[in-house]
Amino acid sequence: MKNTITVGLLGLGTVGSGVIEILHDHKERIQHRTGCEVTIKSVLVNNVEKPRELPDGSTNLTDRYEDITRDPEIDVVVEVMGGIDHTLTILLEAIQHGKHVVTANKDLIAQHGAELFAACQESGSDLYYEASVAAGVPIIRSIMDGLSSDRITKMMGIVNGTTNYIMTKMSQDGADFDSILKEAQDLGFAEADPTADVDGLDAARKMTILSILGFSMPFNLEDVEVKGIRGLSLSDIQYAEELGYRIKLIGIAENDVNGVSVSVEPTFLPAEHPLSSVNDEFNAVYVYGDAVGETMFYGPGAGKLPTATAVVSDLIAVLKNIRLGTTGTAYVQPQFPKQVMPKDQQMTKKYIRLHVLDQTGMLMEITKIFAQYNISFDQIIQRSYEEDGERELMMVTHQVSEEDFSQAMKEIETHHSVKSVESIFRVEGGS
Amino acid sequence: MKNTITVGLLGLGTVGSGVIEILHDHKERIQHRTGCEVTIKSVLVNNVEKPRELPDGSTNLTDRYEDITRDPEIDVVVEVMGGIDHTLTILLEAIQHGKHVVTANKDLIAQHGAELFAACQESGSDLYYEASVAAGVPIIRSIMDGLSSDRITKMMGIVNGTTNYIMTKMSQDGADFDSILKEAQDLGFAEADPTADVDGLDAARKMTILSILGFSMPFNLEDVEVKGIRGLSLSDIQYAEELGYRIKLIGIAENDVNGVSVSVEPTFLPAEHPLSSVNDEFNAVYVYGDAVGETMFYGPGAGKLPTATAVVSDLIAVLKNIRLGTTGTAYVQPQFPKQVMPKDQQMTKKYIRLHVLDQTGMLMEITKIFAQYNISFDQIIQRSYEEDGERELMMVTHQVSEEDFSQAMKEIETHHSVKSVESIFRVEGGS
Repeated sequence: MKNTITVGLLGLGTVGSGVIEILHDHKERIQHRTGCEVTIKSVLVNNVEKPRELPDGSTNLTDRYEDITRDPEIDVVVEVMGGIDHTLTILLEAIQHGKHVVTANKDLIAQHGAELFAACQESGSDLYYEASVAAGVPIIRSIMDGLSSDRITKMMGIVNGTTNYIMTKMSQDGADFDSILKEAQDLGFAEADPTADVDGLDAARKMTILSILGFSMPFNLEDVEVKGIRGLSLSDIQYAEELGYRIKLIGIAENDVNGVSVSVEPTFLPAEHPLSSVNDEFNAVYVYGDAVGETMFYGPGAGKLPTATAVVSDLIAVLKNIRLGTTGTAYVQPQFPKQVMPKDQQMTKKYIRLHVLDQTGMLMEITKIFAQYNISFDQIIQRSYEEDGERELMMVTHQVSEEDFSQAMKEIETHHSVKSVESIFRVEGGS
Repeated sequence: MKNTITVGLLGLGTVGSGVIEILHDHKERIQHRTGCEVTIKSVLVNNVEKPRELPDGSTNLTDRYEDITRDPEIDVVVEVMGGIDHTLTILLEAIQHGKHVVTANKDLIAQHGAELFAACQESGSDLYYEASVAAGVPIIRSIMDGLSSDRITKMMGIVNGTTNYIMTKMSQDGADFDSILKEAQDLGFAEADPTADVDGLDAARKMTILSILGFSMPFNLEDVEVKGIRGLSLSDIQYAEELGYRIKLIGIAENDVNGVSVSVEPTFLPAEHPLSSVNDEFNAVYVYGDAVGETMFYGPGAGKLPTATAVVSDLIAVLKNIRLGTTGTAYVQPQFPKQVMPKDQQMTKKYIRLHVLDQTGMLMEITKIFAQYNISFDQIIQRSYEEDGERELMMVTHQVSEEDFSQAMKEIETHHSVKSVESIFRVEGGS
């Protein structure tokens, strides 16, 4: 049985140096647990001339990826360089040369997962990517381990730290979206271009990965309904609390008899739900399994050492598989054809905030329109509003179909008592 | 490489039949992931005559444990029969005969873990016990996996479902301890003799197991300071909320430069802490690691399928180890000598509720006593009390040493303004 495993590392940024650090500091424990020694033979960098301190003197630096993908001595390629197209080329070449792959790259897996899975299937390679979703949370391993003996029916995730930080601060400090976003950018929590985060794209990529894995179907990013938090109003955050909820940007992936629906959107969650207490930049995934029931995994979603720890855990799993002769059996090809539930069949609860004219019979007329589409209400609050003769109306429905709801909203928008539809959110919990 | 693994099952109660059910329903997946087939050859039961339905016709029932412990064909013994002394004898004999062991028995591990670990060390056997702590929460696996590449500094756990259910209901319904306990007993959530649960012993056993594992030191149940929730007053639950806290029965295991302290006691937790949202009969463990930071694992603490799922996960781990040739390397002997921190050196925050006489200068005198022992306050509330001329005083301290605190309380108890010390709780969070 093989007892030395040779690794090629792609990238030597923050996470890459974290990986080298952990492998060096925990060398003996890893050897004890896997029965084999790990050597990093080569590292792909942009500039081989730049002076660096590597703990192991025998590690080579190279700027030619072929030195890694085509080196017959290298068993596993660890990718922590980021990027999509060029990185895909490199990894496909590595897989074709029979290497196993560990990657932290969510964009790549969400966009080209199917291609990579297929290539691994063909070559019998392992592909592990724990760090790609909620870095410090061992969610992918938990889903995979659980799947040997359970069936997942639903996953709900707070999987983007930047937006969760912004929403937590808005709620705690009562400050508005733009000023908190600026603060987050100044602190380095949010990118200068925050689009991927605040528009929900980053979370959608992670939900794509979780859905492929949890339901074993080949989803793409395009299967995810996405709505971000740009322009989220402080009023809705405050009304949510008054109604017994918190607003969080939640990814929801649900598998029922009509198929799978995957979405990312700001959602009202009951205040007592465990996800409602996931604050600041933390991530968490709430999983519903047939046998085990409800479980939640919580932790840091990013950071040098959390991410590097997840990468090393994957590497340890690959080492074990190599020695077991079970490579290529986990984390690969989805087993089932994709079944996406048509959006108009989805049943959810909704929160609606309207500005309405204060006319006699107004509330009766509005609820009557909803009633025509089988929509009834769990809670209604009516408040006076700063403008004379206007009222603010907050309503939480019972379960409604998307189709009924959008039909009703078309009539509501044009009703003579309705001045504006201020906001609409999905509501989780209750019936 | 071995590709059929033969199992002997001890016990065929709720969990035992759950294990058989899961192994049968997920046969192919397990074979795919581990590369080997699992057969349950024999099951130890009390009454072999009782008619039962077993999915696999070739499984034998026996009432002689030697048929399992001494059967050379059996590789792994799965213990789900409960009990302590007799069960220990059986498992030690199984281990001496070279079998690997999976058990769900927390009492056994907490009380005789050291003996079992030593026996496994000698025979090179595996010993897995995921189901013994918070059944549906993969906490033991997460700690073990994490330990290859991280160092745990602190663990906080809600690890007893019965007490968490009682405290949740007291807080939500405003009902008192005795009536909720009775309700929990009627619903089957609490035992007829609730001692082990409400006095904290069950939680202490689980914290012993987590501490042995997380810090790799040979702790015993006797090393755990235990205080249960019997007589918990509704007033304290309500004051806790007013002060921004929730009271939970928390096990805390902490490893700092002065050694390890392990305790179980009702504790004030900041309302926004993720453990504060763990309600009803759910369990959760919050782990602090040097590299990964703060993570939390949440799920059901008991139940047929959650427990059986955990047992099967352990069995899958053993199967992999057998094929890897790495049995006996995980979950065994603690690496370090035990270092228990003397209780009087522990630094914690405290909540104190006093009944005091409403005399001029009373508060000044009381705070002066505390000040003499270096104890200062984070929050103080004074309220009128139903009895004339009495006040109720709630105080939350900053960090204090146990020694200073108990000295100060001796003076407080005998002070002429103090009518009674109503309650004292540990407070987590803040400085």
